[in-house]
Amino acid sequence: MPVGTQGTVKGLTPADLRASGTRILLANTYHLMLRPGSELIRNLGGLHRFMAWDRPILTDSGGYQVLSMKELVKVTEDGVEFRSHLDGKPEFLSPERSMDVQADLGSDIAVTLDHAVPLPLDAAAQREAGERTLRWTERSLRHARTLKTPEGHGQLLFAIVQGGGDSALRREMAERTAAYPCDGFAIGGLSVGETKRETWDLARAAAGALPADRPRYLMGMGTPLDLLDGIACGIDLFDCVLPTRNARNGMAFTSEGPVNIRNAEYARSDRPLDPSCRCEACALLTRAYLRHLHLAGEILAHRMLTLHNVTFYQTLMETARRAIERGVLDQISREISERYRERDGAPPAPA
Amino acid sequence: MPVGTQGTVKGLTPADLRASGTRILLANTYHLMLRPGSELIRNLGGLHRFMAWDRPILTDSGGYQVLSMKELVKVTEDGVEFRSHLDGKPEFLSPERSMDVQADLGSDIAVTLDHAVPLPLDAAAQREAGERTLRWTERSLRHARTLKTPEGHGQLLFAIVQGGGDSALRREMAERTAAYPCDGFAIGGLSVGETKRETWDLARAAAGALPADRPRYLMGMGTPLDLLDGIACGIDLFDCVLPTRNARNGMAFTSEGPVNIRNAEYARSDRPLDPSCRCEACALLTRAYLRHLHLAGEILAHRMLTLHNVTFYQTLMETARRAIERGVLDQISREISERYRERDGAPPAPA
Repeated sequence: MPVGTQGTVKGLTPADLRASGTRILLANTYHLMLRPGSELIRNLGGLHRFMAWDRPILTDSGGYQVLSMKELVKVTEDGVEFRSHLDGKPEFLSPERSMDVQADLGSDIAVTLDHAVPLPLDAAAQREAGERTLRWTERSLRHARTLKTPEGHGQLLFAIVQGGGDSALRREMAERTAAYPCDGFAIGGLSVGETKRETWDLARAAAGALPADRPRYLMGMGTPLDLLDGIACGIDLFDCVLPTRNARNGMAFTSEGPVNIRNAEYARSDRPLDPSCRCEACALLTRAYLRHLHLAGEILAHRMLTLHNVTFYQTLMETARRAIERGVLDQISREISERYRERDGAPPAPA
Repeated sequence: MPVGTQGTVKGLTPADLRASGTRILLANTYHLMLRPGSELIRNLGGLHRFMAWDRPILTDSGGYQVLSMKELVKVTEDGVEFRSHLDGKPEFLSPERSMDVQADLGSDIAVTLDHAVPLPLDAAAQREAGERTLRWTERSLRHARTLKTPEGHGQLLFAIVQGGGDSALRREMAERTAAYPCDGFAIGGLSVGETKRETWDLARAAAGALPADRPRYLMGMGTPLDLLDGIACGIDLFDCVLPTRNARNGMAFTSEGPVNIRNAEYARSDRPLDPSCRCEACALLTRAYLRHLHLAGEILAHRMLTLHNVTFYQTLMETARRAIERGVLDQISREISERYRERDGAPPAPA
């Protein structure tokens, strides 16, 4: 899922997203509840109509953004007190409020509020956050069943699995979450300080304890390699800002590996970003031109690299789906890994 | 002509420009000679290939940008010494250099170097700049005939008419410019401090002295009203940054008059920017959504308003062409004037 933080995947129209192969996108509850406000979006018919996107939307719970704030966040059993990053006004996010906002937005998939924690953290605090997440999951699901979208529907509901950095706790939390009546599961609280090896051990522990007949969504990751590694752990759905954010920094994901369009080596290159890509940028434009646009601060650079990166990610997932059907996912993953290992645009993994 | 300052009409692809009805665009010689450099663009096959635009391009001479610089500009008979706004390096623009750069870019229409002056200015200085412009026109045309574009063609050549704020001098300069062997004429040095009434008196004086069988291009203007007033003076071709620059400031030109998308009155508006417009923004998006995007600093707001404004300008010109054929230009101009007079997005005209 490309990330449409503020009700738009930065720089792209709905037609661009369809052309990229995007079937579902993510929108951020936190950002939209503060601006323009979920009640306004409800009154205008919901987020699909607001942003003119007629395919599925998943909204997150808003918890991640709120808990990531460095200051003035207070977690109580009732919910999370925080201050708006826009104007400093005090705000409150509870399981019920999160589901209200998501129903206002009218997303197809709403996600329960969780209590995510950074790692490392002592065992008691990890357990406490996990138990609270279960109680918040129950409250979220119970409240959500009473709500309707602006179009008069209910929503599919995904419950978040927490459990910190302990595989046994992860497994327990996944099993207890799986007992709730919901349509899919999100695995949260990963890539928050642990090593990559630990990330995948924890993801595998959680995914393995979730029912096989409902989708599993790994939140907030990741690089092309992360997607392939996650798929190997049983993950079905991902979201990450990397393809869109890196695009604005001049970093393109290509079938030949990452390309930093600022590099002088591309100043006179008449090659496309990625000769095997079907996107408008690769069909029309050279690396030399995209480099010029980027260095000149032209928004067409951001737009074209974003379109390309989103297309690359969707193509990668199509490739993975076909590889699974043909039983060759391992082989495909190894090939792509060779081009992306330690050059994946993400910070190097801790040792 | 939409303005593609740095080899791109900000935020738009070639497909967007075609959809807007754009048949020709302007690119700035000054900007492209400094970055990425005209020799690089020649080596990559010229500006059409560089920006993937297969319809006509007009390049200006670069003189306007250079002479607009507040400091460190020195005009001699040979040319203009200036410093790059990018890195402060000393640069030199002569008639020959301007035509060299434009041939490197491979524009379809190249424009001769002129000596523009601000108004008011004493009569002797106006005469001097006009006479120098004639000598530079001769040098530009003579040199241009020796050059080839990257595709091996010659270029159409437009000569600039100066003459300051004196109608008689304008007429004389136009007559003397018309004696040169060129394919069209540009009228420069207007809207530089004089009143609107004076602008049109001067434009009419120049246009009236130019041959009827070759196009007349009024440089750097203007508002929707300016275009209609210019057409009434015999102008065929315009360029202006207003539709693209105002778009980025949240100002849309519509068939109902100007719309400032920041206004609170549009916060809940489910109307398109312009119900009578055929562009993608008006087909899909509401004013409420565009206002949200603009206030949230999303580049999709700039892209969509730019697409709309360029489409509006092209539609306005189509309307004017049809009105001329039907002999009703005055009537059409009056109707549009009522919606734009003193609300045209330009600073109020001096009394």
